[in-house]
Amino acid sequence: MTRREVIRPSELIQRKRDGGELSAGEIADLVLGYARGEVPDYQMAAFCMAVYFSGLSAAETFALTDAMVRSGDTIDLGAALGRKVVDKHSTGGVGDKTSLSVGPIVAACGVPLGKMSGRGLGHTGGTLDKLESIPGYRTELTLDEFVAQVREVGLAIIGQTGDLVPADKLLYGLRDVTATVDQVSLIAASIMSKKIAGGAQAMVLDVKVGDGAFMKTLEDARHLAEMMSELGRHAGREVVCLLTDMDQPLGAAVGNALEVQEARDTVRGHGPADFTELVLDASARLLALSDLGIDAVEGRRRAEDAVADGSADRAWCRWIEAQGGTADDAALPTAPIVREVAAPVAGYVSALSAVTVGNAAVHLGAGRRTKEDVVDHAVGIVCRAKRGDRVEVGQPLAEVHARSDAAADLAVCEVLSAYEIQDVRPAERPVLLEVVSRSERGSGFEPGS
Amino acid sequence: MTRREVIRPSELIQRKRDGGELSAGEIADLVLGYARGEVPDYQMAAFCMAVYFSGLSAAETFALTDAMVRSGDTIDLGAALGRKVVDKHSTGGVGDKTSLSVGPIVAACGVPLGKMSGRGLGHTGGTLDKLESIPGYRTELTLDEFVAQVREVGLAIIGQTGDLVPADKLLYGLRDVTATVDQVSLIAASIMSKKIAGGAQAMVLDVKVGDGAFMKTLEDARHLAEMMSELGRHAGREVVCLLTDMDQPLGAAVGNALEVQEARDTVRGHGPADFTELVLDASARLLALSDLGIDAVEGRRRAEDAVADGSADRAWCRWIEAQGGTADDAALPTAPIVREVAAPVAGYVSALSAVTVGNAAVHLGAGRRTKEDVVDHAVGIVCRAKRGDRVEVGQPLAEVHARSDAAADLAVCEVLSAYEIQDVRPAERPVLLEVVSRSERGSGFEPGS
Repeated sequence: MTRREVIRPSELIQRKRDGGELSAGEIADLVLGYARGEVPDYQMAAFCMAVYFSGLSAAETFALTDAMVRSGDTIDLGAALGRKVVDKHSTGGVGDKTSLSVGPIVAACGVPLGKMSGRGLGHTGGTLDKLESIPGYRTELTLDEFVAQVREVGLAIIGQTGDLVPADKLLYGLRDVTATVDQVSLIAASIMSKKIAGGAQAMVLDVKVGDGAFMKTLEDARHLAEMMSELGRHAGREVVCLLTDMDQPLGAAVGNALEVQEARDTVRGHGPADFTELVLDASARLLALSDLGIDAVEGRRRAEDAVADGSADRAWCRWIEAQGGTADDAALPTAPIVREVAAPVAGYVSALSAVTVGNAAVHLGAGRRTKEDVVDHAVGIVCRAKRGDRVEVGQPLAEVHARSDAAADLAVCEVLSAYEIQDVRPAERPVLLEVVSRSERGSGFEPGS
Repeated sequence: MTRREVIRPSELIQRKRDGGELSAGEIADLVLGYARGEVPDYQMAAFCMAVYFSGLSAAETFALTDAMVRSGDTIDLGAALGRKVVDKHSTGGVGDKTSLSVGPIVAACGVPLGKMSGRGLGHTGGTLDKLESIPGYRTELTLDEFVAQVREVGLAIIGQTGDLVPADKLLYGLRDVTATVDQVSLIAASIMSKKIAGGAQAMVLDVKVGDGAFMKTLEDARHLAEMMSELGRHAGREVVCLLTDMDQPLGAAVGNALEVQEARDTVRGHGPADFTELVLDASARLLALSDLGIDAVEGRRRAEDAVADGSADRAWCRWIEAQGGTADDAALPTAPIVREVAAPVAGYVSALSAVTVGNAAVHLGAGRRTKEDVVDHAVGIVCRAKRGDRVEVGQPLAEVHARSDAAADLAVCEVLSAYEIQDVRPAERPVLLEVVSRSERGSGFEPGS
């Protein structure tokens, strides 16, 4: 009688703890066993903490990602549409409404985009929370409705549908409460398993770097980007990673309805400079990855044209209305109290802490401290002055949009503490810091070009 | 309105993960919250793994021990008996039946000993499992019965009674399945919380060192001994730690009934040399810690006398019979198959792996691989040749006592692999390697004297 040796999870935990490497089969046993409820939470928590300290090899990270994909359904959106499908994802930051503007722009250029997004937790916002500030917008479509809308309108952004990567849902929830979120292999596997299961053949991944991001340093961000690119390549996906600045909020608006408004303004051609640059760059790279057969330079030209000629804004309206929402800006909720944050001294803004602004927005009610919190879509912060801007005494640095005077008072103090003002102009730091690409095709241009 | 800031367990886990120190209050919140079921297993598992990598400071280990003691009942055996109460504990090894011989010897010398013991798991045996090979022996007494027996007979050894240190029960079970057992602070807190809650005012702790012990090196064992001594001092207890050899099994017998027989033989004065030495040394130190007012040299003399004049064996009989068992050696269960393990070459035994012999005994059925396993009290191994012994080809190295031929075949191979035989006589290594003592009173002598 031959039988497979039963490996106990505790032995795998111990091996990882002691710096050993697990086989693909062992990792699959652990992850799929966990998804089936056979490996308990406490063993998975100990495993994640052991991984936090001992790391995962490239082969182990591939195996983890594969197992997570295999834990649930997969979607082949490309087959359903008869087109090559592209996707865009961000690791999350403060004021990051990029997908809201990129979607209509690439759709206007004839490239369909169907995206599943998540909710926010902690100081970073979630795309679904932002979209829900639009009256009537339906984030929950069936898979059939989702595919139909992408086919007919060219764009749909919804919450996760179907049973995609249930292992990630479980694992992320567990990591969130066991201080094991910020480990590069676990982050890479979590993101890439969802992208792979979601069926996109090519994707632009926006890896945020700075005090408001998971990755605090360019080196860590590069490491994550390279790992995600490798995971994509391993699964036959084209991946371009943008390493972008999150040492200050992206754009001006932080808070759900405020960010929707800013995304719409940007689609119309009058968004903040840093945000507009990132939106156009990401759109260009998505167009270059698409089946249009163009490079990123031509992609950039088409993206700029779609903004200039109003076709991107028309795509916005078609998308929002197809999904049940109203595209009338005046329908967005507004906060009863708007308070200005005045510059206490004259000088140059030398720093504007993204995490501090993000936390101030959460305290206003724009985000969640725990999963049970209800989001207030109207409140938030608009940063009028950004890093490098010259300000005079008393000039408004930012606006606080609050539900109550008490909340506004607190937020004004918090936002003020986020600003550093100095006599000398700080060195410029572009929004796009670096591009990491492992796809076979060249991206056509490098950052800054 | 003032309120206590609620600290989330995940924040404490993260702080420990990042090498920070927790306050006594924070550790108490975590441990007592865990004991009350408010902190879930998965957070405690992640915390234990973080502790595995980041360690605990002395202050944190005190706080952990205190919190564990406070999680349940405490017993004041000294007050109940009107005597200073001593206790003896071993960190666990292969063939470690020391308490079974020490108890009757110190009882015969007029020092009461009431001990709560555990069961075995993995390659080390448990005192309760050994005692249960004696027909009729009751390991479960009520607290009143326990105290009454210690008062009237001078000796009782039982399973844990009452709700002593429930946090340790939970935590040990969790650590066992999450690869977080072998961390020195967690081991020290687990042992000392039980000893402190059990009420002994002075204790001898036998810290095993070697391949069959948790502590593989003298340095690690010294570290654990010093930590336990400090924890004892902090709680006002006198602690003497013996660092003893576990690179080979202790004595000859490994297996429950076989060990009971060897313990009884030793009480009668014809036990194996290494085991006899440890029993007499531990007995002497317990007598020196007791209220007899003697030093360890005098303690040693009295312990040897108790063995020589038969009073220790009479104490054995009184104890076993008081606890419902039969003191007749012939009543112990025996295995149907006894097989000799013959020396394949002539030479000196240079090594006899304790963990290999321990695992062979488990495979015979003498121990548990999982908590659900049922122990076979009759089976085991008797090591006739020990490290340093000269053997000739074909001479029996050991005996295997088995339930079946198949089990015996396997055990013979395993036991053979535990032996190393070389041409030259190995360096002598005494059973007692070192003594660590932080009590106010001197122990009276040093190892080897």
